[in-house]
Amino acid sequence: MVKIPVAIVGATGYTGVELVRLLADHPNVTIAALTSRENEGKSFSSIYPAFTGKKGLVLSKLNVSEVAKKIKAAFLCLPHHESMTVTADFRSRGVRVIDLSADFRLKDPALYEKWYGRHTEKTLLASAVYGLPEMYRKEIGGAKLVATPGCYPTSIILGLAPLLKERLIDPADIICDSKSGTSGAGRSLKTDSLFCEVHENFRPYNIDNHRHVAEINQEVSILAGEAVSVLFSPHLLPIDRGILSTLYVKPIKRLKGDDLLKKFSAFYRNEPFIQILPEGIWPATKNVRGTNVCQIGLKIVSEGGRIVVVTAIDNLTKGASGQAVQCFNLMHDLPETTSLNLSPLLP
Amino acid sequence: MVKIPVAIVGATGYTGVELVRLLADHPNVTIAALTSRENEGKSFSSIYPAFTGKKGLVLSKLNVSEVAKKIKAAFLCLPHHESMTVTADFRSRGVRVIDLSADFRLKDPALYEKWYGRHTEKTLLASAVYGLPEMYRKEIGGAKLVATPGCYPTSIILGLAPLLKERLIDPADIICDSKSGTSGAGRSLKTDSLFCEVHENFRPYNIDNHRHVAEINQEVSILAGEAVSVLFSPHLLPIDRGILSTLYVKPIKRLKGDDLLKKFSAFYRNEPFIQILPEGIWPATKNVRGTNVCQIGLKIVSEGGRIVVVTAIDNLTKGASGQAVQCFNLMHDLPETTSLNLSPLLP
Amino acid sequence: MVKIPVAIVGATGYTGVELVRLLADHPNVTIAALTSRENEGKSFSSIYPAFTGKKGLVLSKLNVSEVAKKIKAAFLCLPHHESMTVTADFRSRGVRVIDLSADFRLKDPALYEKWYGRHTEKTLLASAVYGLPEMYRKEIGGAKLVATPGCYPTSIILGLAPLLKERLIDPADIICDSKSGTSGAGRSLKTDSLFCEVHENFRPYNIDNHRHVAEINQEVSILAGEAVSVLFSPHLLPIDRGILSTLYVKPIKRLKGDDLLKKFSAFYRNEPFIQILPEGIWPATKNVRGTNVCQIGLKIVSEGGRIVVVTAIDNLTKGASGQAVQCFNLMHDLPETTSLNLSPLLP
Amino acid sequence: MVKIPVAIVGATGYTGVELVRLLADHPNVTIAALTSRENEGKSFSSIYPAFTGKKGLVLSKLNVSEVAKKIKAAFLCLPHHESMTVTADFRSRGVRVIDLSADFRLKDPALYEKWYGRHTEKTLLASAVYGLPEMYRKEIGGAKLVATPGCYPTSIILGLAPLLKERLIDPADIICDSKSGTSGAGRSLKTDSLFCEVHENFRPYNIDNHRHVAEINQEVSILAGEAVSVLFSPHLLPIDRGILSTLYVKPIKRLKGDDLLKKFSAFYRNEPFIQILPEGIWPATKNVRGTNVCQIGLKIVSEGGRIVVVTAIDNLTKGASGQAVQCFNLMHDLPETTSLNLSPLLP
Repeated sequence: MVKIPVAIVGATGYTGVELVRLLADHPNVTIAALTSRENEGKSFSSIYPAFTGKKGLVLSKLNVSEVAKKIKAAFLCLPHHESMTVTADFRSRGVRVIDLSADFRLKDPALYEKWYGRHTEKTLLASAVYGLPEMYRKEIGGAKLVATPGCYPTSIILGLAPLLKERLIDPADIICDSKSGTSGAGRSLKTDSLFCEVHENFRPYNIDNHRHVAEINQEVSILAGEAVSVLFSPHLLPIDRGILSTLYVKPIKRLKGDDLLKKFSAFYRNEPFIQILPEGIWPATKNVRGTNVCQIGLKIVSEGGRIVVVTAIDNLTKGASGQAVQCFNLMHDLPETTSLNLSPLLP
Repeated sequence: MVKIPVAIVGATGYTGVELVRLLADHPNVTIAALTSRENEGKSFSSIYPAFTGKKGLVLSKLNVSEVAKKIKAAFLCLPHHESMTVTADFRSRGVRVIDLSADFRLKDPALYEKWYGRHTEKTLLASAVYGLPEMYRKEIGGAKLVATPGCYPTSIILGLAPLLKERLIDPADIICDSKSGTSGAGRSLKTDSLFCEVHENFRPYNIDNHRHVAEINQEVSILAGEAVSVLFSPHLLPIDRGILSTLYVKPIKRLKGDDLLKKFSAFYRNEPFIQILPEGIWPATKNVRGTNVCQIGLKIVSEGGRIVVVTAIDNLTKGASGQAVQCFNLMHDLPETTSLNLSPLLP
Repeated sequence: MVKIPVAIVGATGYTGVELVRLLADHPNVTIAALTSRENEGKSFSSIYPAFTGKKGLVLSKLNVSEVAKKIKAAFLCLPHHESMTVTADFRSRGVRVIDLSADFRLKDPALYEKWYGRHTEKTLLASAVYGLPEMYRKEIGGAKLVATPGCYPTSIILGLAPLLKERLIDPADIICDSKSGTSGAGRSLKTDSLFCEVHENFRPYNIDNHRHVAEINQEVSILAGEAVSVLFSPHLLPIDRGILSTLYVKPIKRLKGDDLLKKFSAFYRNEPFIQILPEGIWPATKNVRGTNVCQIGLKIVSEGGRIVVVTAIDNLTKGASGQAVQCFNLMHDLPETTSLNLSPLLP
Repeated sequence: MVKIPVAIVGATGYTGVELVRLLADHPNVTIAALTSRENEGKSFSSIYPAFTGKKGLVLSKLNVSEVAKKIKAAFLCLPHHESMTVTADFRSRGVRVIDLSADFRLKDPALYEKWYGRHTEKTLLASAVYGLPEMYRKEIGGAKLVATPGCYPTSIILGLAPLLKERLIDPADIICDSKSGTSGAGRSLKTDSLFCEVHENFRPYNIDNHRHVAEINQEVSILAGEAVSVLFSPHLLPIDRGILSTLYVKPIKRLKGDDLLKKFSAFYRNEPFIQILPEGIWPATKNVRGTNVCQIGLKIVSEGGRIVVVTAIDNLTKGASGQAVQCFNLMHDLPETTSLNLSPLLP
């Protein structure tokens, strides 16, 4: 079997190490380059001794023209803004790019610039596909540039899609109360990410003011067929991995719980990574830790006046690197679940 | 100074040990009895070696007629149902009761029986005062039987009171997304309370089906002046102590954030345990851990279409034993903050 | 490929669910029976919703004569004492047994009875092989009954073996300071295993009085060629998974750190699951979480007067179920690492 | 009552905020200055919103000549090296200094320079008293400059003192296996202190190579009356607060457990913060969290061949700021326990 050579750019952050975990075991992939700004020449296991058993993983400084010769696809785990230049450089050399940053998620460059600053590669935006396979499987299959969704947006869009697509709820009244593990903040140094600040603590942040809201609104509007603004409240959990979103929506017709469950099950019928839970069982972040699964539970409440949908994903897997591999598989005509049939680690 | 002799009944659970912490240092109190079904004759420090330095705390089996002779007030940390009989027994002997169970919180015995089972002491219900000093200070001052609020209700009612009292929001559209630390489940043995089930996990439970909703609705209805049903979604946090409630409500007139903050500050002007945070700063459970404080933050969102109110309390202190001591102080004409000027423990 | 049908007996505890994780993905295995005393007829995912994606796993009550007809090998995750009877029953029907309890670890039944109570299947003891492949690979290969080692003993024996085998240290002066995650205590209900007792806490227990010491001494004595009693101090860590043992031993000749590292590397040269770390890098429980790896680091200290060896394993994998699968592979002439090439989950 | 005006220099780190907790409630103290390099002019509660209820705490930039006019004593929570200059400056203006850094702990400047770099205030060393009241109560009482002990040394010296003073053990054979919570690493930004690196992890670091060993050896040698080198192995715990040290020593005469317990109890008879636990009960970090207590448990093991002593302290209280206040009380003829009668926070 011919293996596809890939690069992981920015390999020492948390999405990078998660990609190493998934790609080192991928039967159709060779990791041909592993780059890091600060650790040139070091073995990957000198940064992450957990990978002592994986031989031959050496970090290099990114040199796009050199790396491009050796690879077919690049996974970019770079900060936003930095990513767009590297993407353009790889694309101009014919390398497929799976970009995990925010740089190519938003169709509207003005919106990007409102939240993230100047966009210098606007011409690439049209070719970028939003890497949520449950919504854009076909487009991802033919794409050369995929922008994988943010972790919060993944957890929210997957919970709302059946309701919006089937016109079951009022798009003007959507509340997303999301709670994320701390790895979502990355491995960079911030006081707020210190153990003693996070442990035995819980708090909201950036309520109605988090930049993921632009991305959520873009996709929710497409699903609703009209402009939608959700209310998005993120919170920080004292766990490593996991996002749980509790979504409050308003049905526009009378529904029974059973029927709604059936609609969700039908909507996601052939999806390998979506699990609809039976009534009375709610998702939990630990259920999906280390897997590419999104669990969904729901209930009609307030005597029919509201629906609560709860979703759980692992922010580093389905919320980032796992989804990136899923897109990679689709882009390369491989079985979508290759290297992603991951069992949960309990407890 | 004459000290008031009190009993702590059910002293080895988490609300019990929190009462011991607060009352052992209370300048106007003597702990005259400390009871436990299973640990008769043992020293308190044999159960909780952390209390090795507190001498003279010995556990006995509850004998109401004996204990009643020695005390003026009893704090009851018993399971619901069990508590009502002991309450009646103490009251019939003239002892003041601060009951931390649910047995005397609900005015309507039918509602109690729906959620908790048979109520055998209905005649006492009329004399019971709901122990939330910010709402019922005067009544508590004159009460012989106080039922301290549940932890979730405390965190929710305090966040909604100014809005409801001043008719600023639609009482028919209130969503309470609450997250509680695990000590709220008590010290009894349940698989769901095991370390390996809670740690590195987060999940909702009993959405729209938690028995605290009866109590929340009772008090919210009184505040609103009409029958109200809130939507209540509890979640379990991997922390010991703390409840954070994120409340979503709908304003019925145009409001500015500044004005709203001022209204909250004015409403709670003389309250020693309520802290209104400046805009942009949100409550965090760690900020109030070990204290009797309720922190409140808020924001007008969705272009004026919603208000988000966030409250944080320590479920064992303001949510249970601290509030019980606050009520005790009021019942005995002591300064309300006696033994409750607790500094937060950071980190 | 013909698959080997197996049973997991006692499948709902933590070693059980870990076996399900490993065996559900094992290419040469079919899980033919999954038993639980209390959950007859339920799907495995109704107990562990994390396994929603694994279809066809249904719990039954153990009926040895029925199950024995369908399987070639049984993994027993039962409490000690209970396990010995079931083992005998399966063995009498020709089924191979991998027993994860303590029942067949100790050669000397008197020692067993000192620590665990009566042994009713002494005749089987002679045929039982201690399931530590790094020491008894050949014997395990030919065994019909394998007793997998305890988690603490695994972490200690692997750290001491090269030193004892090569007569480098004084066997009379061995101190084992071990720290274990809470899953080692199992899923049964104990106050000491509650989240609020373990979280933000650390403490020793059973110092010089833990029953694993019998097993450690048995194996250490065999390695030393003389009767040895180690000093064993277990501690409880507020983590789910992982054991780290810090071993203090006394060299009987002058050694250099480099040479010692080389000796360890040589000793474990062909071992797929042992990783000797370079000087200056110490093992960490998170490095091996979810894997079958034992990491070992060491240093000559006190100016040559002592050696410190540190080992880290995942108590549920290399310390229990992973090692059981490793033994199973050896017993069935499968590649030893089948289904055990597990990547670490970071962070 | 006249209150003593004090400064807390470096108030926004973890030892600083712990001093604010203790001194804000101290009946004989006024906090006259609270300094921070980076937060000039901000309120303390803008950095730590947990202190919203404590009014009047404003951060300033340190100006020694100005501050010295307003205060009698300064608590220095500065990095080592930086602290020595500020100490000299305050001392030259007659201000008493309680220095929480390492700068004046070591009598021998050569030793200091080996571990910490150049010492520029050697002339002050002679007047500095090591701030461990259980050993140097009288000297602290008369001191103008107190260097409070490191957290690890406090936990180790208190466990060894009775044994060494009474010549019960071999000073040449002492092993200190210590485990510390993460607040010991301070609030500065390090990858190793990030939540995702510490949580669900446990690991040793700097074995036989931690700079606290110089301080431990200095004090242990004084106790033993001869030069002693202990073996010191620190480990990092996924908890906020607490150090537990497991000490392995060799008795030089036959001892009974009971007698040893009595010797410890007698040795610490009048100590308000030392708790000797009965046999069979071991210290736990949670027992002392937030308190100035050191719990000690012990056992004679290995058939009399060894003694295990276990100590637990809160690294920020008895291991740093609490001990600093204890020294302050002694220096100012106040009751030693003033503001330190702290109850443990359980759970």
